[in-house]
Amino acid sequence: MSVFGQSVTRLEDAPLVRGQGAFAADIDFPRQLHMRVVRAEMAHARLLSVDVAPALALPGVVAAWSAADVQGVPPIPFRATKVRGLEPYCQPILARDRVRYVGEPVAVIFAEDAAMAEDAADLVLVDLEELPALLDAAAPPGDFDGARDTEPTIVRKAYGDVDAAFREAAHVVALDLSIGRHSGVPMETRGAIARYDAAMDVLELHGTAKKQHWNRDEIARLLGRAPSSVHLFEGHVGGGFGVRGELYPEDLLVCLAALRLGRPVKWIEDRREHLVATNHSREQRHRIRAAVDAQGQILGIDNVFFHDQGGYIRTHGARVADMSAGLLLGPYRVPAYRVAGHFRLTNKTPAATYRSPGRFEGSFVRERLMDAIAARCGIDRLAVRQRNFVGVAEMPYARPLDALGTDVVLDSGDYALLLDKALARFGWDARQADVARRRAAGECVGLGLGFFVEKSGLGPSDGVRLTVDATGAVELVTGAASVGQGVETVLAQIAAAALGVEYRRVRVLHGRTDRIEFGSGAHASRVTVMSGSATHQAGLALAALAKATAAAMLQAPADSLTIEAGVVRRAEGAGGASVTLGEVARALAPGSALSRERATPGLTVESWFHSDHMTYPYGVQMAQVAIDRGTGTVKVEHYLCAYDVGRAVNPMLVEGQIVGGFAQGLGGALYEAFRYDERGQPLSTTFADYLMPTIAEMPPLDVLVTEDAPSPLNPIGVKGAGEGGTNAVGAAIASAVDDALGGRGLVTTLPITPRDVLRMLGT
Amino acid sequence: MSVFGQSVTRLEDAPLVRGQGAFAADIDFPRQLHMRVVRAEMAHARLLSVDVAPALALPGVVAAWSAADVQGVPPIPFRATKVRGLEPYCQPILARDRVRYVGEPVAVIFAEDAAMAEDAADLVLVDLEELPALLDAAAPPGDFDGARDTEPTIVRKAYGDVDAAFREAAHVVALDLSIGRHSGVPMETRGAIARYDAAMDVLELHGTAKKQHWNRDEIARLLGRAPSSVHLFEGHVGGGFGVRGELYPEDLLVCLAALRLGRPVKWIEDRREHLVATNHSREQRHRIRAAVDAQGQILGIDNVFFHDQGGYIRTHGARVADMSAGLLLGPYRVPAYRVAGHFRLTNKTPAATYRSPGRFEGSFVRERLMDAIAARCGIDRLAVRQRNFVGVAEMPYARPLDALGTDVVLDSGDYALLLDKALARFGWDARQADVARRRAAGECVGLGLGFFVEKSGLGPSDGVRLTVDATGAVELVTGAASVGQGVETVLAQIAAAALGVEYRRVRVLHGRTDRIEFGSGAHASRVTVMSGSATHQAGLALAALAKATAAAMLQAPADSLTIEAGVVRRAEGAGGASVTLGEVARALAPGSALSRERATPGLTVESWFHSDHMTYPYGVQMAQVAIDRGTGTVKVEHYLCAYDVGRAVNPMLVEGQIVGGFAQGLGGALYEAFRYDERGQPLSTTFADYLMPTIAEMPPLDVLVTEDAPSPLNPIGVKGAGEGGTNAVGAAIASAVDDALGGRGLVTTLPITPRDVLRMLGT
Repeated sequence: MSVFGQSVTRLEDAPLVRGQGAFAADIDFPRQLHMRVVRAEMAHARLLSVDVAPALALPGVVAAWSAADVQGVPPIPFRATKVRGLEPYCQPILARDRVRYVGEPVAVIFAEDAAMAEDAADLVLVDLEELPALLDAAAPPGDFDGARDTEPTIVRKAYGDVDAAFREAAHVVALDLSIGRHSGVPMETRGAIARYDAAMDVLELHGTAKKQHWNRDEIARLLGRAPSSVHLFEGHVGGGFGVRGELYPEDLLVCLAALRLGRPVKWIEDRREHLVATNHSREQRHRIRAAVDAQGQILGIDNVFFHDQGGYIRTHGARVADMSAGLLLGPYRVPAYRVAGHFRLTNKTPAATYRSPGRFEGSFVRERLMDAIAARCGIDRLAVRQRNFVGVAEMPYARPLDALGTDVVLDSGDYALLLDKALARFGWDARQADVARRRAAGECVGLGLGFFVEKSGLGPSDGVRLTVDATGAVELVTGAASVGQGVETVLAQIAAAALGVEYRRVRVLHGRTDRIEFGSGAHASRVTVMSGSATHQAGLALAALAKATAAAMLQAPADSLTIEAGVVRRAEGAGGASVTLGEVARALAPGSALSRERATPGLTVESWFHSDHMTYPYGVQMAQVAIDRGTGTVKVEHYLCAYDVGRAVNPMLVEGQIVGGFAQGLGGALYEAFRYDERGQPLSTTFADYLMPTIAEMPPLDVLVTEDAPSPLNPIGVKGAGEGGTNAVGAAIASAVDDALGGRGLVTTLPITPRDVLRMLGT
Repeated sequence: MSVFGQSVTRLEDAPLVRGQGAFAADIDFPRQLHMRVVRAEMAHARLLSVDVAPALALPGVVAAWSAADVQGVPPIPFRATKVRGLEPYCQPILARDRVRYVGEPVAVIFAEDAAMAEDAADLVLVDLEELPALLDAAAPPGDFDGARDTEPTIVRKAYGDVDAAFREAAHVVALDLSIGRHSGVPMETRGAIARYDAAMDVLELHGTAKKQHWNRDEIARLLGRAPSSVHLFEGHVGGGFGVRGELYPEDLLVCLAALRLGRPVKWIEDRREHLVATNHSREQRHRIRAAVDAQGQILGIDNVFFHDQGGYIRTHGARVADMSAGLLLGPYRVPAYRVAGHFRLTNKTPAATYRSPGRFEGSFVRERLMDAIAARCGIDRLAVRQRNFVGVAEMPYARPLDALGTDVVLDSGDYALLLDKALARFGWDARQADVARRRAAGECVGLGLGFFVEKSGLGPSDGVRLTVDATGAVELVTGAASVGQGVETVLAQIAAAALGVEYRRVRVLHGRTDRIEFGSGAHASRVTVMSGSATHQAGLALAALAKATAAAMLQAPADSLTIEAGVVRRAEGAGGASVTLGEVARALAPGSALSRERATPGLTVESWFHSDHMTYPYGVQMAQVAIDRGTGTVKVEHYLCAYDVGRAVNPMLVEGQIVGGFAQGLGGALYEAFRYDERGQPLSTTFADYLMPTIAEMPPLDVLVTEDAPSPLNPIGVKGAGEGGTNAVGAAIASAVDDALGGRGLVTTLPITPRDVLRMLGT
């Protein structure tokens, strides 16, 4: 039985459960210095002067820099999209003339230990002249910096005749919906340890995550080095979720210091820093209108939204706004659509991608809209969705939109089938009856759902190198990164299945730019699709090479051979001759007769997979909630995540992804919010103020993974599974809370706090 | 003008002259332990017991092991040759029942710092029962270990009718010649730092040299690991010369300790240890006879020799004896030859390869023989050589012998031409006249020469990976190693010339097993021939790929393009369109249209060069010496090294190799000797006792590099240049000293010490 599709245990766990993990804080080099960042304490101010002299006077302080010391270094760049004109809004690695959010790096200290550095940072004199803080992205845009205003761009997309749709509509449903500011808060804060190897003229950056190769190229460019002289190394990563591993000012600062000071430089973020310095996300306000016919069939949608980017552009550029605009429509057939996404700066921590970026927001907006259409038309919430689904016969379904630079073509899916399966699994009808009984008894309970389409498998290319050594051990080198999602296990399973070895024999090397020239890291639910497909191809190619070589060794036709458990044998039976893959590798050692027949020796192949389109997994989530009328507390009594991932390489890991993703969605739905006072001072800088769900908040969670719609875009049929758990939690819980409150469309904001609930209860 | 052949400055020097070198002692890891080896203090003894308990009681000592603690680890292996039966003579990593030389590792201490480890080592109780020490390899073989005697093998080779030659000879010249025990003594002693990365399950060994990939494979095998889970890393190396970088017990011990103790383990050899623990070399006694006709034409040679291997086989196996046997005949036509090389163990430090192994010995023996033939036949020393040279018309000249497992086929050479050039350069005739005048005035002066054929470029294969990054920087990854010989510069020159870039744009990465799966390190003067040829091929292939890609970019036929200084342009003139190699690389980035036309993206190629035969550079060295009759001191007044290397990639580096090699030959000729007392106690354990030549002993040295006989065996015509400086120093100085002493054949041993000279002077 192939290991592809089996819930085998994770390869990455052995060192972790033994306490042998190597997280950023575990990485040390002799003679290392410690960096501490001095951060802006006002949200918006002129930066009049920075005096590091008092800090430099402290024993153990080796250097202290302000912007004047790093003038030659360009600001942090962003990954190009079609959106133009963002360059003026990029963040300098140390603030120059203004500070634009509380937490912005203003100066840095380098000292012999972390405590000295922290003490010295307190002595830096930063002279600020406060300016009014702009905190509402939906307010009219204002002055950013004289020449520029606070709206770098408006993301516009459209197709069909939207105005006609609204003219012809039986009903127009208009909503004003807001998603709160929250983000990925990994257990491991960020860290960066830079080391300059003068002997080799190589700059190393350790403790990295997510995008090693892109970051390598940009660090090289910003510091004027060849990319081949900069190497990024990934250790264990205590959660990424989109925020960790982007290129931040601190990464550049440790690199620059390692080069200038000739000593390794270590920086470990503390939790308070993390909550103001690491990317925020999500904050977005939508004014959305739907034109529908009398039966609730959508005729057109007009979507205006305001994306609160915070003080600067970050490395994702305007991608969240782009995805919010391009992917909002989800599973529904929408004849006409127009969107204007106002991408705006405010005096808050810069925002970027967080698990299911743009889709968590969009699903909340779209599914609130579907509930509102149902209410307006007086039809069932399920029926309105079924009526508007893109049908299975319409697949692949090309929507005249683009997102992330690719055309949106839904590759496969049977939305109605999944909804039916989910309703049955959730026991929707029984729960409806139960809810009715409990309401009659005075309880405030409700059911809700959110249907969604995720996107995954962004191209264009991914490659791996697969090698069998002389002992039969298999090494897979990939430019993908591991942020805890199980990439080692999944790629090992795919390689093992294609090649014919035990998956535990496959060592997966990732996140190291010195081991493979190109890579795409771990983001956008693309690794299993892209690197997985490349791995599958490589496994098949390596099996073919092994068989061709073994054919010469065994004097048998290659097509009479099979590979199982690392042994190549004649297919006809166990009694036949055989060779191990290790023996095949030895037969291909440099100089051997068989190796000379090929351009290169060794049992090794490099294989690349290309894809021009994303693949679209889809799902539905259902919630049953109960509200405490006294406290306004929402208790999720039962929850279902149903998700079609095409094919699950390891169902247990897919479930794990869904459960973890759900927990993060739950935070965004009910608890987590970065809040600011009227001067832009952050109010959520501890875990007492920024409320993350704990195990106590986790409801009974049911997960239904289906494989009804394998992707036709890759040879293994997979779709990404990393973000579906998060995607519709805001949508489904809002739907359920709204249902509990009488289905009046009162729930228009996330998170839904007890205070909000009490207000909506009218108490 | 191509950079191939230019004496450009060395790429490797920048970090070294800036004090940024990373030698073994410079490598540190946090929490590292320091290892100290407890060594045998008797040359031959039963090992009754080892008690490490007193050492363990010392504060800071973490572990202490004797043989009982490392029983599962097999002894140090050797590289296979045709010689069989050596396995029982391999060295255990810690002595088991017997000790066989003073300095043999008996126990090891691991402690928090090196001083603690050294103090603790002194407390280990080693109970020995002394046995008679066998110190003369030419004495009848004795008992090694009950079942085995002290002669593991006899290397026999023969062709022609030797007995008939001696029957028909006009003269039989018989000599008994000895070469003293000396070795490479690099400025940097050995060092090994092992680290186990539990997070990746990778064992790392730093501070390595010479044979990283072979050592990786053997360490993996001995420790039961997959080779792909063991990585060796080379830093700067303060001289190798054949001895540093072989696999020694200490390498295994630090690896094993890093695995067992879970902390990095560092070992740095001290000088006294080095002189008893690192491979010795050279000690060999020849009883050689030549059958010649009346004109001094050689009819046959019968060569019996005794190779003093010391206490164990080392990693080279019996290669020095094999080369001594197979390569002795050098440039001369010898119709019949028979050799019996008695490979024998003694109770001394084990011996192995040292710069020009077997050839330094052989040239001394052969050239002493030629002088003796000349004397016996009453003909000139030059004439007897010219008369016996293999002629240029006879090339390639297949000699029915083998060495290092390959047939000996002299690939090209014009020996007579080089001798003529050298005589002219040295001013042989004028110096002869001058010597005659000075002798008449009572001085003891003489001239001597030694002609030699080196061997180089051992196959079977070498490969490199050559890549241009997006900025046009070039990276060459090779499995070759750098032991200071200039490999970075030479390979960069070859790559630059073939590709069309500035050689300083080429970063050469070497000696790291994680960067390339296979490699052969640096030994046997093979890197420039084998890795150089692979580099040349790779450069041409990369240029072709760049042109093909640029052709699509520039809309021009590929064959109309040239590459110069990293720019691809149309050949017709400067005004034409052009693209840089960096732009070509970017056009081949993953996902690009041009990259998808190929199996793999990037401007990168891997190329392998294969060769079944060695290539044979050749040379002649001439010496003028003066002897102080009062002290017996030999002063070298003038010296010429003439060497034909086929083609010199960098003549300055060839000269540097020759000068350095000469200095080591000078040591072996006049100064260096590991001496033992009658119980086998080493007497040469400091630099006051082991006399290395200093700058004061270096004579005026002239170097003549010729390129008259490019090798037909590789595309760049090169032959190895690393060992020719050493090869004939013993031969030429012995010839000159003998000439000064009246040409009576008195000089039969190396080194020629003042005591020997006084004896020969009869004073």
